[in-house]
Formats: sequence, C-alpha cells, structure tokens
Amino acid sequence: MSHMGSTDVTGLAEALAPGMVVTDPDILGAYRFDRANDPDAGTPLALVRPTTTEDVQTTVRWCAANGVPIITRGAGTSLSGGSTAVDGAVTLSTEKMRNLTIDTATRTAVAQPGLLNAEVKAAAAENGLWYPPDPSSFEICSIGGNVATNAGGLCCVKYGVTTDYVLGLQVVLADGRAVRLGGKQLKDSAGLPLTKLFVGSEGLLGIVTEVTLRLLPPQAPACTVVGSFSSVRAASEAVLAVTAQIRPAMLEFMDSVSINAVEDMLKMGLDRNAGALLVAQSDAPGPAGEAEVAIIEQAFARCGAGEVFATADPVESEAFTQARRAAIPAVERLGALLLEDVGVPLPALPDLIDGVEAIAAANRVLISVIAHAGDGNTHPLIVHDPSDADETARANAAFGQIMDLAISLGGTITGEHGVGRLKKGWLRDQVGDDVMDLTKLIKSALDPAGLLNPGVLL
Amino acid sequence: MSHMGSTDVTGLAEALAPGMVVTDPDILGAYRFDRANDPDAGTPLALVRPTTTEDVQTTVRWCAANGVPIITRGAGTSLSGGSTAVDGAVTLSTEKMRNLTIDTATRTAVAQPGLLNAEVKAAAAENGLWYPPDPSSFEICSIGGNVATNAGGLCCVKYGVTTDYVLGLQVVLADGRAVRLGGKQLKDSAGLPLTKLFVGSEGLLGIVTEVTLRLLPPQAPACTVVGSFSSVRAASEAVLAVTAQIRPAMLEFMDSVSINAVEDMLKMGLDRNAGALLVAQSDAPGPAGEAEVAIIEQAFARCGAGEVFATADPVESEAFTQARRAAIPAVERLGALLLEDVGVPLPALPDLIDGVEAIAAANRVLISVIAHAGDGNTHPLIVHDPSDADETARANAAFGQIMDLAISLGGTITGEHGVGRLKKGWLRDQVGDDVMDLTKLIKSALDPAGLLNPGVLL
Repeated sequence: MSHMGSTDVTGLAEALAPGMVVTDPDILGAYRFDRANDPDAGTPLALVRPTTTEDVQTTVRWCAANGVPIITRGAGTSLSGGSTAVDGAVTLSTEKMRNLTIDTATRTAVAQPGLLNAEVKAAAAENGLWYPPDPSSFEICSIGGNVATNAGGLCCVKYGVTTDYVLGLQVVLADGRAVRLGGKQLKDSAGLPLTKLFVGSEGLLGIVTEVTLRLLPPQAPACTVVGSFSSVRAASEAVLAVTAQIRPAMLEFMDSVSINAVEDMLKMGLDRNAGALLVAQSDAPGPAGEAEVAIIEQAFARCGAGEVFATADPVESEAFTQARRAAIPAVERLGALLLEDVGVPLPALPDLIDGVEAIAAANRVLISVIAHAGDGNTHPLIVHDPSDADETARANAAFGQIMDLAISLGGTITGEHGVGRLKKGWLRDQVGDDVMDLTKLIKSALDPAGLLNPGVLL
Repeated sequence: MSHMGSTDVTGLAEALAPGMVVTDPDILGAYRFDRANDPDAGTPLALVRPTTTEDVQTTVRWCAANGVPIITRGAGTSLSGGSTAVDGAVTLSTEKMRNLTIDTATRTAVAQPGLLNAEVKAAAAENGLWYPPDPSSFEICSIGGNVATNAGGLCCVKYGVTTDYVLGLQVVLADGRAVRLGGKQLKDSAGLPLTKLFVGSEGLLGIVTEVTLRLLPPQAPACTVVGSFSSVRAASEAVLAVTAQIRPAMLEFMDSVSINAVEDMLKMGLDRNAGALLVAQSDAPGPAGEAEVAIIEQAFARCGAGEVFATADPVESEAFTQARRAAIPAVERLGALLLEDVGVPLPALPDLIDGVEAIAAANRVLISVIAHAGDGNTHPLIVHDPSDADETARANAAFGQIMDLAISLGGTITGEHGVGRLKKGWLRDQVGDDVMDLTKLIKSALDPAGLLNPGVLL
C-alpha cells in the first residue's frame, strides 16, 4: 500500500465536480492542523470538499482503489488531534455539507455533518424546539465532529451527551457503500445498535454524511447561582454537596487562573481573589426551581463559599455561562495549551483536582483547571511555551501524569473530546489489552485496509 | 461442529460447582420456552446456572472447545423468542447471578444480570434514588434481559430507554475472555463506544455478567390524566396534540378490546364503551405540572374525548398505570397471542393504528392494540387459537403484514422487545442488505464460530 505524496489525484478530481478536489499548497497548508496543534501534523495529499453522500462515496471508492488513507475533518476544532492531516492522505472536509431540515411533527433535525452545532441549535429554536448538547465551542464546532467524539458540554449534567440525541445516521463505509441506520422513530431495537456504535467512533469505522437528531421542547428559563470559594478543594466538595441532592442543569467549575484570564479578556467583574468559582443553574420551573436554587445556595455556603450570588435574569445568567465558555481561549492567551479532558466518578473529583495541583507543582508548570464539574469531567489546561524545550518536556510529563491519575481514580482519559492522536498512548492503560483487541477486531472487520483516520485512537 | 444432543457435559459439570449443571429432563423441560411460546423450541443439552463471571467464562470456554452453542436466558420473559432453547445447545440461565450494590455517592447500581428490574428499582428507592426504565413486565423481567433488548417501558417517553442508563458492563466474550467496558464515570469518550454496542445486541456478541446503571434522584409525584375516546383514530390524534406541546412523563394507549379484557380481570370501573383510552402523566413540579395537566386535558377534549379525568392521588394514578400494565396478561386470557412491538415516527401513529384495524378485518382475526403511544411504539396483540390451524395461519399472516406496514411507514419492527427468533424474517426488509452485511461482519468478528444465541436476529 503506497501512501506517497506523489499519488496522482487527477482521477479523483475528474470523478467529482470541478473545484471539489483542491491541491493548491496554500490551501492545503490551512488544513494541516486542528486545534490540538500537533507539531507532527502532515500535509494533505489533496483536500476534498464534498457536498453529497454520493461525493463521499466516490472519494472513498477512489481512495480504497488507490490505497490512499482518508482523514475526515469537520470544523477542525478537535482538541485531541482527531483531524490532524497525514502526509499522503486525503483530507475530506465536510464543511460544504450544510443541508438542514427541521421536522416539527417528529421533533427531529436531519443535518449534514458540516453544519455548526450553533446552527442546528438556532434552526431548532426558530421552530420552537431545542437541541441540548452544548460544547463550549458550540459556535465553531460541527455536528459531524460532535458525533465523531460523542461531544458533551455544559448542560450535559442534566441533559446528556450527543449520543443521547442521535436517532439515525447515514454512514459511508470503508468500501464506499452508504448505509442508513435508525431513523425518526424514537425507539428502535431492530438489529445490533449500530447507530450507537458510530457515535463516538472518531471516524474510524465510516464517514457520517447525515445525522437525524432528537429535539426537545424549549428549555425553561434557568436561574443561575454563582459561588466563589477560597480553595479548589472547597469548591469541588460543594459540587458533591449539590449533586447528592439534585440534578442541576449546569454545574461548572473555574479555578483562579481561569477566573483571572477570563476577567482579563472580558472585564465583567469576576472576583479575582477567588480560589475557585462554581456556576450552577436550575431550570426546574416555578417553586421547584426556587427550591433547587435554595439547595445550591445552601450547599455552596455550607462548603465555605465566600460569596453566593443568584439571579433569574437571563442576561446575567448568560454572562456567567459565557465567562465559563471563554475560559479556554482566555487561558490560551497565557501560552500554548496542552488540553486535558479527564473524568472521574463524582466522589473522586476533589482528589482529581488536588492531584492536578500536585502534578503542576512537581513539574513546575502552570495548570489551570476548568470543569464540567457536575459530571466529573475536568479540563486541566497545561500552559507552556513551545519554544522552551525544557518547559515543553515538563508540560508533556504533566499531561501524561494527569491521565495516569484519572485512570488510577477509576476514571477516563477523555470525557468528551475523544482520544484522537494525542491521548492514544494512554488508552490501553485505561481499558486494558482485551478491550484494545476487541477494538481492533471491530476496526478490522469494518475497515480492513485501515484507510479511515489512520493514527487516531489505535 | 457437532450440535448433537449426545454431547457429554460431564467435563463442564466437573469444572463448575456441584449442581450448577443440570441435565434432569424435567427441569430442562421448564427451560424450553420463553414467553414467545415458539412452537419450534428445542430442548437444552444442559442447563447451566452460574453465579459468577468466572463460572460464565468456564462455561463459554468449555462450549467453545466442544463446539456447543449457548443460549443465554434471563428471566425467560422474552416476547420475541430471544431465549428459546435450541436442541444441542447449553442454556445459560443468569437467574442465580443476583448481586447488587447501590452506590449513593456516584448514584449508580452495580447489578448482576439475574436481578429483576423491580428489584433494582426497589433497592434504588431504598437509597432515595430512582432507576427509570419500566417495562410493563418489570416485576418479572431481568436486568440482563433488559440490557439484551434495550428494553423500554412506560416512562421512556420522557426518561429514555435502557441504553440511556447503562454506564458500564462486564461482558464475557465468545472466546471466554471477560472485559470491562465503561464504568461509574458519567461521561466517557475513550475508545470505541463498546458499552453501547452490547446494549440491545440480544446476546449475539457476548454474555453480560455485570451492569453499572445510572440512577436519578426520585421522580416527583405525577398527576395522571385519563381520557376516553369513541375511536382509536381520535385517541391517536390526541397523542400528537399532546406531544406537539409537551413531553409527558407517560402517554399510554389502550383500545376497546384491552380495556374490556383488563376490566374483566381487575374490575376497576374502566369505561367499557370507550373505543380507546389514553393514560397520560406529568411529573413536572408545582404550577408547571398544573400547566401540563391543563394542556393534556385540553388536547384530549379538543380531539373529542368523551370523558377526561385528572388526579394527583398516587393510589388512583397507580391504579391506571397498573391497568395499562395488565393489558397483555388480560388479553392473553382471550387466546394465545402473537405479540407485535412495531413503532413509527409519531405523525404516522394514527395511520399505523388504522392500518392494524384494516389488517385485523382482512385476516378475520382479533387484534387488540395497546401502545406506548407517546413515543410511537405500539403492541398489537394478535389473538388466536393455536389448535385452529386456519386461524393460526391468518394470525401469522397478520403478524407479518403489521411489520410490513410499520416498515412502509418509516418505522421499526421492534421498539423494545428485540428481533429474537420471531421477527428476524422482517429485519432485512427494515434495514436493507448492506446493514445486514454490516451486522454479520461484526457478529463474525466477535463470535466467529457463531456459538452465542444462534438463530436470534440472523
């Protein structure tokens, strides 16, 4: 099998619409990296920007016939290197696959993968409906990428992750056949649960060309409770005090580094002296919501919150949610980031956060921790200067140690970003040899030549 | 590969604890059928009742070495023949795998597969928690069977199906290895979504020996609204009128045959003259719940309900829920049942119910329709006398025609019971040749000798 950059893509270009295959080096250069900024990124042999399932089939068949691997790319926002280019491989970008229909009768959206999460949300809202999954990057990440990684977000603590909303898929398999899985029916036990197998499979088993998503009635207006704490330990214990009693609609954590980085960027009046901040929401209606807000306030106070602020004002609420969403870009201003996505069973959250602090000290690197705390999913952000070889080495050491810590606490190396290229060295440590074998058996059955997203996960 | 009944199981019996392997023909006779009463049921070569994962591994390894297939059986309540015995195969019953721990800190239950759904619910409730999935048979069906079929139930219209609650599994593979998938973490994107692949795979890919289930805070007290309608069409249109506005916590449908059969059995005062009955619930707290009840009442009235009755009394509410749950055993008193589980996208529900009525008339058989109407999942119950060959032939014809109808309406042949043996003739019509190929690829990769549940699904 030859993966040489010299493979002639003329045949592919002729089989697709004019302009759909791009070999201009300047354009290819823009498709080398995703947001993981992998220094080992290659350069695409060619960029293909299909618009239909048939275009994807044509591309896959040509690649299969010529032994050319395919990297599928959504909006290029992968934080784990899931869409990093590989030398000699075609990069298939779904950015021009943007059809969307909202069906209010079945309460479903049928979306091509290149649509942004925010566009699906907006179209649902225009029809009086709600698509819940809300990665912090929802304004720039694609639905196809969300499906590939089983993306989560802020509301997932109450409303679940992407897989909970995927009712059906169209998928182009490694041999070019297109299959339809599931559909608009809300319950379906017919055959193996193949729809679920593809959600979170990081593009290893097929290329998703259409997604049928379940929509909900609109979310009730939420009340927001913000608590500032002197220590990360106190805040993480407050998380457990809340989740032991209720299921909040949001429960987010920011440490002092991220608070200050966001305040530098947004200047919204966050407490720069806080050791940690929790942002919680209840969307239970009426008195039930008031009761939940009281439970959150009391839990925060009991765990030592210095200040607790509650608001039902949607503008104020959104400001705090935006502050949390802005944390990654804000901390990124301090230096390059190695971005973790480790998760643990909830009671282990304080130990995880303490342990990250110890790892930062031991490796003399700055690590800012933000978290979807209500479901135990944290994002330690390891700040470093890539031009400083020693600091970069220490950052890389910390990156591995944090995953080792999460595994030792019975948790996961990735809660919502996927393994991609950056975390695959730790996957075996988490799941064990037999699960790795099982993974390879399924990969080999569905993609025997290994053409789909080589280098990801395995 | 020999599947002869004459295979000597002495070696297996010696490898397991005394009494764990049963060959007494009287006992084997009790394990031939499940609730689908397949007339083609065989007789087990032997019955194995393991208590641990290791026992299951020993059994699988012995069977693999001797080319003996394994039928895995939970509580034997399959309505699609998923645990029907096969001549020459071992029946592995999970009935003695009954360990259960509730972890309030992580809000999870870790259950062996032989526990009944009701036992898991009760243990969760004792700890102030709730396990939502509630098949009508919850008092007699096992958690392992629920996982195998991705079982649904009454509250699923709002709270989802079994797969939505399975965080982790231990599974014995066809070669005897035991793997752990997922765990107590609420979010996990590490590796292929293998946990999800096994939920609903009907025992074809491995034997589940432990399930980690997500639990929720207790459900708020529900208000129940009952509407009686003169026709099934009016009732099914009322279903759409409700779901267009809110997400009820229950929305169940009974036709006149089932109403009268239940009334004969329970004598609770149901309206014997009604053409159809809807039983809806809202568990939204306080004024939001009152608003939902009003929406349901108005929708029922607008669609022509003759009588609408609402109650917040838990005893009255439970009586109506029990009436609906009693429908299958009640209708079963009228004759043997061929039990459908067809589902459609919600707007097609009235056409499905009308179509079933036409199929009943065309085939001159009695068909009673009950339904988890709020998610488009119906259970037409085809009543027949198995000793009447002509009527049985007409019942079988109707059985197939109803699945053909569901497929033609863009729906599924099974919403929650699984394909089993009874419905496999229609699976290809629903999913197509390519999905059947994909199914076989995965089955062959994980169980190349085809020893696990042969005859089910494929």
